[in-house]
Amino acid sequence: MKEITSVSNPQVKAWKKLATKKGRQQSQTYLLDGWHLVKEALNSDEPIQKILVTPSFKYLADLEILPEIQYFSISESIAKHLSETKSPQGIFAEVAFDQTTISPTTASGAWLLLDGVQDPGNIGTMVRTADAAGFSGVVFGPKTADMYQPKVVRSMQGSQFHLQLVTADLSTWIQAFKAKNYPVFGSELNKDARSYQEVGQHQNFALIMGNEGNGMSAELLQQTSLNLYIPIKGHAESLNVAVAAGILMFQLID
Amino acid sequence: MKEITSVSNPQVKAWKKLATKKGRQQSQTYLLDGWHLVKEALNSDEPIQKILVTPSFKYLADLEILPEIQYFSISESIAKHLSETKSPQGIFAEVAFDQTTISPTTASGAWLLLDGVQDPGNIGTMVRTADAAGFSGVVFGPKTADMYQPKVVRSMQGSQFHLQLVTADLSTWIQAFKAKNYPVFGSELNKDARSYQEVGQHQNFALIMGNEGNGMSAELLQQTSLNLYIPIKGHAESLNVAVAAGILMFQLID
Repeated sequence: MKEITSVSNPQVKAWKKLATKKGRQQSQTYLLDGWHLVKEALNSDEPIQKILVTPSFKYLADLEILPEIQYFSISESIAKHLSETKSPQGIFAEVAFDQTTISPTTASGAWLLLDGVQDPGNIGTMVRTADAAGFSGVVFGPKTADMYQPKVVRSMQGSQFHLQLVTADLSTWIQAFKAKNYPVFGSELNKDARSYQEVGQHQNFALIMGNEGNGMSAELLQQTSLNLYIPIKGHAESLNVAVAAGILMFQLID
Repeated sequence: MKEITSVSNPQVKAWKKLATKKGRQQSQTYLLDGWHLVKEALNSDEPIQKILVTPSFKYLADLEILPEIQYFSISESIAKHLSETKSPQGIFAEVAFDQTTISPTTASGAWLLLDGVQDPGNIGTMVRTADAAGFSGVVFGPKTADMYQPKVVRSMQGSQFHLQLVTADLSTWIQAFKAKNYPVFGSELNKDARSYQEVGQHQNFALIMGNEGNGMSAELLQQTSLNLYIPIKGHAESLNVAVAAGILMFQLID
């Protein structure tokens, strides 16, 4: 196991760059932080290139050594430097992007489409919820935050290994689903939209969630099969987008 | 309007202390940050004691001047010092705690009980969702984070003005509801618990959500009328607690 103790080591600098979209694009890899995620990646046979671990890492004895992975022993200060959490657990993995692409013409099942969702915590939580609800995948529209951003990765909690994540133009997906007679449900804060409880359960469909402040773009709202509304009974102006997505996903899926 | 320009002014120090539980307990007040919350408080006739505003605040012209409120002009640097956000809007209000108490023996409607929930964003989002779902109130158990913590206040988005928030012992609430034949639903990650879709809709009931990592305490799980489970169809291990609470609240309320 190669030992690195200096924060200014070029390899550490390369890992630090994975916190930026540009850095990730260049290397086509991203970083997992913490035992839960690294274990999930190992169990899912993800393309792990490197594993970084501190000497005091709590579950060091449980860490399997595989020939295709490069292992590094890093100092506590490097772990702190690389982590976005205050008390890193002391284990990281550098994983290659999932290069599988899926076309909307062949996709089936339930799909969540994200139109301009910005908050990484909301995005990660929606991916995790889509996984729990039995969705096939999540499509990230052009204005949605990057799927491999550290905070997104943290809140996905490994769900990226269970369902398909795609970055694509949402109109293309909407048209392809409609062409196959799969309903495409938009969501909006509009009492004239259809209540989400009135449209039944479906096996093949898409659900679109919009931006936290502005909702879905007007352009996409016009392309859907139907736009849904969650009736607000109290005085709150709206629901958090990840909560709304959870209510809709669990209600709509068959 | 009294003008304050120094961060070391004693009044600024007093406001800064409201970021701590101890500071809030001493003054029995908390701070609202941003126009949306201050406007909500004004519209709801909340007991606002002081309003702090920067000279460049965007909606200064819309700010009504009321005789019972003390107004302060604060510098941008004070606004930054007091705010937990990177770009504060330049308006704050110091509001007295809601001193209304409600007893579980007289409470009716739907109530959300929080058992050891720790993340302030989750707590605030659950209060906001309870408001949207038409709940009567939220009870904060002893191990749940403080309701007036700045991050909780930010994510409640003003819902504390629409429903009743109570800090209380949860066992007392559970026993009182059961004595009135109001069902008390626990929630747990246990496939042997009852599916949330099988228990119908209710007007008077309590729903308990537990800690992010450990769920509800074993002690309380034994005191409920029935414990509910949200079936996980995919491979995610669990749902985010605020998402789970949203699904349950919207499903259970009549």
